[in-house]
Amino acid sequence: MATLLPSVEPSVFRDRRSRLAERIGATPALLFAGGYRSRNYPDNIYRFRAASHFLYFTGAQIPDAVLVGSSVGWELFIEPDGPSHALWHGETPGPEQIAAATGVERVRPLAELADTVAALGGPEAVATLPATEPLTRAGQGSLLERDWGRATGIVTALGERDAKLADAVIDTRLRIDSAGLEQMREAASATLAGHLAGMAITAPGVPEYRVRAAIEHEFFARGMQCAYGSIVSVHGEVLHNDTHLGTLQPGDLLLADAGAEHDGWASDVTRTWPVTGRFSATQRAIYELVLHVQIEACDRVRAGARYRDIHLGAGVSLARGLVDLGILHGDPENLVERGAHALFFPHGLGHLIGLDVHDMEDLGDRAGYQAGRARSDQFGLGYLRLDRDLEPGMVVTIEPGFYQVPAILDHEELGGRFARDGTLNRSALERFHDVRGIRIEDDVLCTEGHPQVLTRDIPKDPAGVEGHVGSAR
Amino acid sequence: MATLLPSVEPSVFRDRRSRLAERIGATPALLFAGGYRSRNYPDNIYRFRAASHFLYFTGAQIPDAVLVGSSVGWELFIEPDGPSHALWHGETPGPEQIAAATGVERVRPLAELADTVAALGGPEAVATLPATEPLTRAGQGSLLERDWGRATGIVTALGERDAKLADAVIDTRLRIDSAGLEQMREAASATLAGHLAGMAITAPGVPEYRVRAAIEHEFFARGMQCAYGSIVSVHGEVLHNDTHLGTLQPGDLLLADAGAEHDGWASDVTRTWPVTGRFSATQRAIYELVLHVQIEACDRVRAGARYRDIHLGAGVSLARGLVDLGILHGDPENLVERGAHALFFPHGLGHLIGLDVHDMEDLGDRAGYQAGRARSDQFGLGYLRLDRDLEPGMVVTIEPGFYQVPAILDHEELGGRFARDGTLNRSALERFHDVRGIRIEDDVLCTEGHPQVLTRDIPKDPAGVEGHVGSAR
Repeated sequence: MATLLPSVEPSVFRDRRSRLAERIGATPALLFAGGYRSRNYPDNIYRFRAASHFLYFTGAQIPDAVLVGSSVGWELFIEPDGPSHALWHGETPGPEQIAAATGVERVRPLAELADTVAALGGPEAVATLPATEPLTRAGQGSLLERDWGRATGIVTALGERDAKLADAVIDTRLRIDSAGLEQMREAASATLAGHLAGMAITAPGVPEYRVRAAIEHEFFARGMQCAYGSIVSVHGEVLHNDTHLGTLQPGDLLLADAGAEHDGWASDVTRTWPVTGRFSATQRAIYELVLHVQIEACDRVRAGARYRDIHLGAGVSLARGLVDLGILHGDPENLVERGAHALFFPHGLGHLIGLDVHDMEDLGDRAGYQAGRARSDQFGLGYLRLDRDLEPGMVVTIEPGFYQVPAILDHEELGGRFARDGTLNRSALERFHDVRGIRIEDDVLCTEGHPQVLTRDIPKDPAGVEGHVGSAR
Repeated sequence: MATLLPSVEPSVFRDRRSRLAERIGATPALLFAGGYRSRNYPDNIYRFRAASHFLYFTGAQIPDAVLVGSSVGWELFIEPDGPSHALWHGETPGPEQIAAATGVERVRPLAELADTVAALGGPEAVATLPATEPLTRAGQGSLLERDWGRATGIVTALGERDAKLADAVIDTRLRIDSAGLEQMREAASATLAGHLAGMAITAPGVPEYRVRAAIEHEFFARGMQCAYGSIVSVHGEVLHNDTHLGTLQPGDLLLADAGAEHDGWASDVTRTWPVTGRFSATQRAIYELVLHVQIEACDRVRAGARYRDIHLGAGVSLARGLVDLGILHGDPENLVERGAHALFFPHGLGHLIGLDVHDMEDLGDRAGYQAGRARSDQFGLGYLRLDRDLEPGMVVTIEPGFYQVPAILDHEELGGRFARDGTLNRSALERFHDVRGIRIEDDVLCTEGHPQVLTRDIPKDPAGVEGHVGSAR
């Protein structure tokens, strides 16, 4: 068992648990850490990552542990080390050390959990959140008599008690505390080093996976992880690109979406740079447009602003720029109402980020969408993951992009329709054939005043980017 | 869906399937690729790795795919791309490309699998192997009416038909073919680069995770993965050490157990080197002993040799050296019979390696232990993962070690007993307090003649190791 204790004071976790307790009242709550995920056989495991709801309130990475809050306070239930444990794993933290580091009242053997649940009034009297890791979810469902089915997809249908816990956890985690922000800044500094290293080794002939390795090495060499599967591709227009087998060619833009994770806290940054170190005139025109849209949107991350409005405003700015370039025709506001900007910017402007890179997405839209709001049916807007009025302490990504996706532009009901009615000028677009995909993304903290861009040191103005590309040569 | 097609000729997989078909006769066989493993929420996934039994016979990494062999030949059942697939994932290989690259007769939609099973005579008429990935295993169990329980532990109880398939697959995979060996040599060359990079940046004050990052960067920068979770630790005596938070100190030995995986094929190498670049006299004495034992054991990897005898012979050589150093007292053969060598060398000498770093360990000891042989109850020998008569084409690891594990040496029934009867000389051992853990491991191919050490270029003689440590400074 790889027990990793928190690197910050236990008071951080005591405070977080107190804030949760205020919100859930007398209902006992159980949060599960989850277990190992096997790769090709049981003993060959992926690196353990505790479930975020558990990690947030304990700071500890303890496979199979369960945090229980009740009238006796907070207790951690863990699998005790067996007799041969020390032989293979050496001395690992014992119950007293774990209690001291996490600040919980007591650490107890997992075997006592079932009796504890019974003593608390049984499965129906306690609240829980379904684990993502499937074996834990199955065991949890059996212990607590929940039927979430077999799959580990997002669970949207929660019972009343569990839904109340979900909302309380969301409300506690939504505004990042100072300890969390400190971790996110640490993650951002590794992400900065990573993107600089990636730019530095970029050159024609280099494989994508080598740039990816250079970026991620900066994370790992600081003892951090990847917050998500990096995208490093000359086909930036493939939005969920998880292969890295291409080779950089002169004239290509390279899109790198990669962020470090520090003690579980995420960063999420995208930069796009020219393989040769020089944007072509057409690439520069679109790049500067996306950058303008991105900086403007970052600046609109203010207390009280509705994120959906920032998203739609970014769409209008992008549409205006595309009208100026002759690619779209019409009034920018009207183009966005009709969804024409989504031909080139089909995804949402961003999402919550915290312990999860899409924060609390295991709970579906419950975290991202304020009560009473729901996803749109419109192409593009339907992919927006966040529609809340922003509050100080929330951290969001701002990540507009421009992509030429054949599946959209050639689609009868999308590119086809807008070309037929004169909105889309395909011959003007043809000039920009060397711009397949550009995205620029930062992590932005909403404050009482000006927004703070946590990832602001990572170069994004064209000159800064060009200055770094190939600098390792 | 991240479909990765094989990088070698389809004839390789046709040949492997033919060899399997000869062994299973008329029984239809279903092999499952397995699905994604989620990290903290459903969309945030670990890098996909297809199940080895599937990968071996197709060369393809296709989540949720199923390979079916029957009287109509070999067919692949895959989840077809949905209408919005191209929007997010771009153009990915279609059924024709997948069929051409893997050499299967046909690629069909997964939705047709259930009817196919029925047409083949139903669940009882087909054979399968339980997937390690839990959601796939659950779905597979439900489709084929197998009850493997909820856990993904090693399944030892297989029905007769499945057991016959397991034995046929083992017999097919046990002797690595030339395509597999080629992949393993590629993996070994990245592992060489990794260990050299790790040695090069070693210096007092460097954190363990930075050395680990340097090693693994060489794998990732070649587009490869880690075959297993690397161990990089100044506490080599902690055998399953998965943390890397220590800092290298003068006088420490650093143990690095790390291997690359190329197209799924593994390498597995351990080297141990001094942080300062110089072994102390005591470290050198033990290191040279372990190296002698290791080279001798590598040389005994011959057709017809029983692996257990090589293991026990290594124990005798180690015991003889420890007697010479005054640490143990007695006749070396007799010391091994009594298990005294296991005080310092508690694990097995090695294991099968191929597509899995512990090859086919998902099937328990069925691959590692020849029919009629079973694990010993003795401390030490009970941990031996391999007891077969070696045959040309088998690849095994040879990895003797010397560890001072407090949980063993201080144990009443282990260290205590041997100290009381005069076998263990604790005051002589005290001189070697700066030797906490040494392991030296290579991957060795059994041939008709001399064994081939696939990982032989990675320095292991003391002078070679010393020459590389700190060379990046």
